[in-house]
Amino acid sequence: MVTPLVAPDELDLPGLERLIEHILAGGVHGLFILGTTGEAPSLSHRLRHEFVERVCTQVNGRVPVLVGITDTSFVESLNVAQRAADVGADALVLASPYYFLAGQPELLEYLQHLVPQVSLPVLLYNMPNRPTAVFEPDIVKAAADIPGVVGLKDSSTNMMYFRLLQSVMEDRPDFSLLMGPETLLAETVLLGGHGGVCGGANLLPRLYVDLYEAAAAKDLPTVETLHRKVVQINATLYRVGRFASSFLKGLKCALSCLDICSDFVAEPFHRFREPEREIIRRTVNELGITKDGLADLK
Amino acid sequence: MVTPLVAPDELDLPGLERLIEHILAGGVHGLFILGTTGEAPSLSHRLRHEFVERVCTQVNGRVPVLVGITDTSFVESLNVAQRAADVGADALVLASPYYFLAGQPELLEYLQHLVPQVSLPVLLYNMPNRPTAVFEPDIVKAAADIPGVVGLKDSSTNMMYFRLLQSVMEDRPDFSLLMGPETLLAETVLLGGHGGVCGGANLLPRLYVDLYEAAAAKDLPTVETLHRKVVQINATLYRVGRFASSFLKGLKCALSCLDICSDFVAEPFHRFREPEREIIRRTVNELGITKDGLADLK
Amino acid sequence: MVTPLVAPDELDLPGLERLIEHILAGGVHGLFILGTTGEAPSLSHRLRHEFVERVCTQVNGRVPVLVGITDTSFVESLNVAQRAADVGADALVLASPYYFLAGQPELLEYLQHLVPQVSLPVLLYNMPNRPTAVFEPDIVKAAADIPGVVGLKDSSTNMMYFRLLQSVMEDRPDFSLLMGPETLLAETVLLGGHGGVCGGANLLPRLYVDLYEAAAAKDLPTVETLHRKVVQINATLYRVGRFASSFLKGLKCALSCLDICSDFVAEPFHRFREPEREIIRRTVNELGITKDGLADLK
Amino acid sequence: MVTPLVAPDELDLPGLERLIEHILAGGVHGLFILGTTGEAPSLSHRLRHEFVERVCTQVNGRVPVLVGITDTSFVESLNVAQRAADVGADALVLASPYYFLAGQPELLEYLQHLVPQVSLPVLLYNMPNRPTAVFEPDIVKAAADIPGVVGLKDSSTNMMYFRLLQSVMEDRPDFSLLMGPETLLAETVLLGGHGGVCGGANLLPRLYVDLYEAAAAKDLPTVETLHRKVVQINATLYRVGRFASSFLKGLKCALSCLDICSDFVAEPFHRFREPEREIIRRTVNELGITKDGLADLK
Repeated sequence: MVTPLVAPDELDLPGLERLIEHILAGGVHGLFILGTTGEAPSLSHRLRHEFVERVCTQVNGRVPVLVGITDTSFVESLNVAQRAADVGADALVLASPYYFLAGQPELLEYLQHLVPQVSLPVLLYNMPNRPTAVFEPDIVKAAADIPGVVGLKDSSTNMMYFRLLQSVMEDRPDFSLLMGPETLLAETVLLGGHGGVCGGANLLPRLYVDLYEAAAAKDLPTVETLHRKVVQINATLYRVGRFASSFLKGLKCALSCLDICSDFVAEPFHRFREPEREIIRRTVNELGITKDGLADLK
Repeated sequence: MVTPLVAPDELDLPGLERLIEHILAGGVHGLFILGTTGEAPSLSHRLRHEFVERVCTQVNGRVPVLVGITDTSFVESLNVAQRAADVGADALVLASPYYFLAGQPELLEYLQHLVPQVSLPVLLYNMPNRPTAVFEPDIVKAAADIPGVVGLKDSSTNMMYFRLLQSVMEDRPDFSLLMGPETLLAETVLLGGHGGVCGGANLLPRLYVDLYEAAAAKDLPTVETLHRKVVQINATLYRVGRFASSFLKGLKCALSCLDICSDFVAEPFHRFREPEREIIRRTVNELGITKDGLADLK
Repeated sequence: MVTPLVAPDELDLPGLERLIEHILAGGVHGLFILGTTGEAPSLSHRLRHEFVERVCTQVNGRVPVLVGITDTSFVESLNVAQRAADVGADALVLASPYYFLAGQPELLEYLQHLVPQVSLPVLLYNMPNRPTAVFEPDIVKAAADIPGVVGLKDSSTNMMYFRLLQSVMEDRPDFSLLMGPETLLAETVLLGGHGGVCGGANLLPRLYVDLYEAAAAKDLPTVETLHRKVVQINATLYRVGRFASSFLKGLKCALSCLDICSDFVAEPFHRFREPEREIIRRTVNELGITKDGLADLK
Repeated sequence: MVTPLVAPDELDLPGLERLIEHILAGGVHGLFILGTTGEAPSLSHRLRHEFVERVCTQVNGRVPVLVGITDTSFVESLNVAQRAADVGADALVLASPYYFLAGQPELLEYLQHLVPQVSLPVLLYNMPNRPTAVFEPDIVKAAADIPGVVGLKDSSTNMMYFRLLQSVMEDRPDFSLLMGPETLLAETVLLGGHGGVCGGANLLPRLYVDLYEAAAAKDLPTVETLHRKVVQINATLYRVGRFASSFLKGLKCALSCLDICSDFVAEPFHRFREPEREIIRRTVNELGITKDGLADLK
């Protein structure tokens, strides 16, 4: 889930309420907040804490809420984890710290120290495209033995890594393997992965739920139709502008075009200026994206 | 296809003959020689030329032969391309030059200069894990307009790149999109890719042909069974030893365990020594790998 | 300056007092706190604020105090900057945010937004070995026009970059160009750089002050003698253990061997265990490192 | 030394003769051919062999000739080494193979296999900015024990690496440590390095010889004057255009502006087109670069 903002340290409160209801109306199975798409590292800790509380209050148990606690500071990770537990969140999501890159044995020790100090289950988060250390398969295998570690979300885009991980974890069917990039949701679930964490579900929650369910049901024709839509969105809506931030800016801009929430983006990025916004507006129309889903899928 | 060697500059001739017949007996749709698995960059140009000629002579038109011509030297690429045409090969495979990394516009110009000077069709080869420049989707789109460029093999392991490429090339169904890593063959073909170039087919050609055909036929239960075997091979046979060369060494060692060809590996690598060879031998047995295919699939 | 700790979120207060007096007794021209060697990203914001205040109180104007404010969150950077100004610090040090990597134009905008909101002068910090965006020479040139930006510390280890930067900034002799790695202090100052920020000065402040002064005075024989000592320390004391954290662990361990402060290192790292500590202890003796400086230079 | 070309596979013979005489007239202590600046990887092996022979014939023992033999193929490296020995070259220069990246132990074995098979002394070549494996200090230490290995040229631009290497090799004063990037020649020699291999000496050989001699004589005022010129050339002449190839294109273009040799650059690069050539022409004039050296230093 994105973090709707109106200023560097201020939430877009009406937007946040609309966004949560919009996503839940689409039938998602859970909410992941304070991840990369949620711009967590760009937010003050004060705002992160406020955000966790507001989301949990509004969701009120309708779906599980997963809270990202990744931070360069062990103590700040614990602080967010404590707040999450206090306000009724259901699980935590943890990538390796991203300033000092730990060696693999150091990374395992880090998990062995941190996880026992939090009270909620922990989902690991593999993000090698970001400046965090990858969780190598053997380290995941070892980490899965720490009580409280329940799965891993992989955003590496490296499917060989994911397939290898499935093989290494074959004897642990209870360990959830989730996919980050939404263009890889279909193949993940078709071949034994457990689900996905799709940024695009901020905009079109039903599309991703339907795709997941079709893949889980091995309904290949439906998968192909919906997968093609997802890739098309990625190839257009998320590729405006020339920086790595185009996904985030495009997604928030599209949400704003649909009057769901503000497109304010925290530093070091900025919302799209008018020329890019015009391209996004046109693309939203061409793709048939509405608050109620994709026009031609209804 | 691997390149069977008995010395740094000498082919394993009986092994080469056995290997070709072994692979063709498995029903493959073509042979790709002088790629990364073929150790092309490690071989002298004299040996590369000899090898192309011997392979084409023995295959004798039974399946198409694709010849890797990637080189740091434009002139040497043309030389191999000429030899390939002279001895009856069917197509060429070309990655970007890998010492001086060309910018994307330079890369397009490079293709525009080279492709018209060769007489065989050219398959592009995207290999960002190797020190070659990636072909960005927009450059592939432009390169596809050069007469003679017929497709692209992607070995990046980045499925997001591949799915994006499919979307960008949607209006060019004649442009072949092939997958390098064999663990990604199943999902590639299930969701619209055209095929794969599988190193493991040196060892178990029928397994990869069967997997391709099941995926093309959308026979999901068979795909799942065969895909699991492929991943298992990757998670065991190719992961002995601690260097990036473990795939190549493991594959050649397994071929040698089956008495198909020599396990000599060209510098800067070396064949496995006895401890690793013993692990490979045991793994081959445990996986049920025989000259006739996987024991438990028969 | 390192941050002396006794627990993840607790300062080593007596150690901090001893460390400051030890360093000031060596004649340094300033103190840089909350940098990489200060483990800033690993510390809670609460502790960072406490630390700034304690250091400024104890230094009490004897030398300038520079405070690192680099953070992934713009708001948290402003918070530390405000605290630094409140407690009497003299300048701020700012690298680019290190989770989301800004493009070069985004980076310039980031500086244009942040610097006017702080009241102290800002020294840029180039750290491409860490996961932060490099400040390209043209961006430094543009950033130098923002009022308040007074110089740059380069820790890239890439001397070509530094020499190029000197040439590009030749018309701005007021813009300070400082060196991070202490093994490069001698050549930096010999050829026109303005100084260095030497982690080793925690241990041997006089050595680095003397080396700077010899280089500034173009006293080449003295430079050669002291420079050789500095490189020797780097080649031994900072190279124990096999991870990137060996510099930090070795430095804190040596400070602890001299009873200056605790060797506690924040997660994701850990202090050296006994075998590595024994090597450090021996190396400290062999190099003749004492609280009063290098034995053989006295 | 650059490789003067008139076509992809054809030397600029009159240009080559003029270039050699131009460089030798500048007083250089040796010639290094077929390195990165010599575009060796872009040339056919036939042309590399022809080039070695022509250079050795014309130099005729006036200065030592060092020949780059780096290649992805062990056999081709041996072939060039043999040719170099046959035509009277004095030494070989060898980086690690650059397609398959060897692990450090594999790299040491590679040297242990190759060096005994060549008859000329070998200078190692550290080039981590190119896609070759770095020679780690401990591997250099071990490689120095192979008879025939006489030194190392470092083009990493990482001065920390170079200073560390000097410290590690302190007990081997016979082992030559040479610098690649010419902007680092001054500080290299001032602090104990043995010399440099300067691409700019194609254009202004006397400048680099004078700088070396001033640094060797510890004549700091002269070093500062000449060093400033060298950096200025790097900051202007080598920074036209936006690709990594700007150094090579700028250097060849400047040589052509002085009518020394052709500016033809081998694929995947191309000579500068007219707009960039015009900038180079103007820069050459502004810097006062003439066939006889820098105008204002005469």
